[in-house]
Amino acid sequence: MTYWEVKQQLFSMESRAGVAATPGALPYYVALSQLLGLTVVAMTGAWLGLYRGGIAWEGALQFNVHPLCMVIGLIFLQGDALLVYRVFRNEAKRTTKVLHGLLHVLALIIALVGLVAVFNYHRQKGYSDLYSLHSWCGILVFVLYFVQWLVGFSFFLFPGASFSLRSRYRPQHVFFGATIFVLSVGTALLGLKEALLFKLGAKYSTFEAEGVLANVLGLLLASFGVTVLYILTRADWKRPPQAEEQALSMDFKTLTEGDSPSSQ
Amino acid sequence: MTYWEVKQQLFSMESRAGVAATPGALPYYVALSQLLGLTVVAMTGAWLGLYRGGIAWEGALQFNVHPLCMVIGLIFLQGDALLVYRVFRNEAKRTTKVLHGLLHVLALIIALVGLVAVFNYHRQKGYSDLYSLHSWCGILVFVLYFVQWLVGFSFFLFPGASFSLRSRYRPQHVFFGATIFVLSVGTALLGLKEALLFKLGAKYSTFEAEGVLANVLGLLLASFGVTVLYILTRADWKRPPQAEEQALSMDFKTLTEGDSPSSQ
Repeated sequence: MTYWEVKQQLFSMESRAGVAATPGALPYYVALSQLLGLTVVAMTGAWLGLYRGGIAWEGALQFNVHPLCMVIGLIFLQGDALLVYRVFRNEAKRTTKVLHGLLHVLALIIALVGLVAVFNYHRQKGYSDLYSLHSWCGILVFVLYFVQWLVGFSFFLFPGASFSLRSRYRPQHVFFGATIFVLSVGTALLGLKEALLFKLGAKYSTFEAEGVLANVLGLLLASFGVTVLYILTRADWKRPPQAEEQALSMDFKTLTEGDSPSSQ
Repeated sequence: MTYWEVKQQLFSMESRAGVAATPGALPYYVALSQLLGLTVVAMTGAWLGLYRGGIAWEGALQFNVHPLCMVIGLIFLQGDALLVYRVFRNEAKRTTKVLHGLLHVLALIIALVGLVAVFNYHRQKGYSDLYSLHSWCGILVFVLYFVQWLVGFSFFLFPGASFSLRSRYRPQHVFFGATIFVLSVGTALLGLKEALLFKLGAKYSTFEAEGVLANVLGLLLASFGVTVLYILTRADWKRPPQAEEQALSMDFKTLTEGDSPSSQ
């Protein structure tokens, strides 16, 4: 083959595989999501610093480690892990997968620190554990998140799972991933509300500065969630299948006559 | 044409149009959603009856109209309105649309009654309005829901909008519909938490019966939300396009060379 022929073949493979320009509006939505996410993290820090005495691992301030870790891990990093396949559209699938898995591991570790902090604090103070709706939702979300990670790892990163098994599990993984993310945002809002009502009580209704700040933080948390889900679910922003995958999928289709996998 | 020819033509139109058997598992998931939805409504009633003195339009019990109306309107009926296109798969598109619109109107009216109840109650008691995160989220959700209904009506039921405009707006309508539903569930959880903490305070941590009942209600609310979204988003459960629509879409495609609309 001449260079020109190879070049032409590559071009035709690329256009079939959809290695196309990133959709025009996507970067703006991604930027918005990052702006919202970072604002939420910063505002949680500001709330804890201004109205709750800051953060420490020992003593009464240990409680404050909990909301900060949860917002960084289970909101910001979990949200960003979901966006990896939309942002890195033309990287090798394997690289994207590894990044997706790593971000989730990081989120899981930070959330675990946040979990240990609140249980430690409760023990120190002699409070009971796991009595509130926030704590029930929280422990459920954490367990689901861990299970989702394990199952995701064994299907998609571990080499064992067959191609058809992967393509049948993929939509379930995506749905439950999005669901766990939404539940995380909801649980954070419940926790924020709990922290406010325990401290402010009836003063909440006098528009105390802390209450207003926390309400705005709550709306921003919800907005981050909605923005991430919008980017994730928009059909024309899905990751295009790549040349390697397409070829593979063709091979397997010929071999197994199974259904063709939809790209993540 | 002979009867046989007509019959054959009908059969070929139907199979082209995807008038197929309902997917096997769908009815079970729909049944589960209805079981969860009705349990949530009944349990809200039981909670208000057992622990909050029941319901009345006059006096202190007027507050209790609020959670009951919101759960019936913005949770149960809104959720069911989203499922109309999955449940009535082979009815004429127009009938399904009208039912979808009517269920949303009913939900909106019931929610409005719930909204009036809480504002009335606050005025009676001299409480301030709209200070909490629950109220901010609630008023936002109500306004968004009303706007979504108006825009949906003018695009899909009012005869003015063009075919290509409809098919471009449809994915946005679906995304924002699902988002408003999720926000409604989240707002209900915040309200439940608020009602618990205001009344129980520190007693919440002693596993009072009311607290445990309300926590279970909260988990069931979240489960109803997840089940509805699962049915709504599963790709192979989407409503198949019908003969009339397909023919129409062909005509318009030929006329306008626009993009083909995806079925709801």
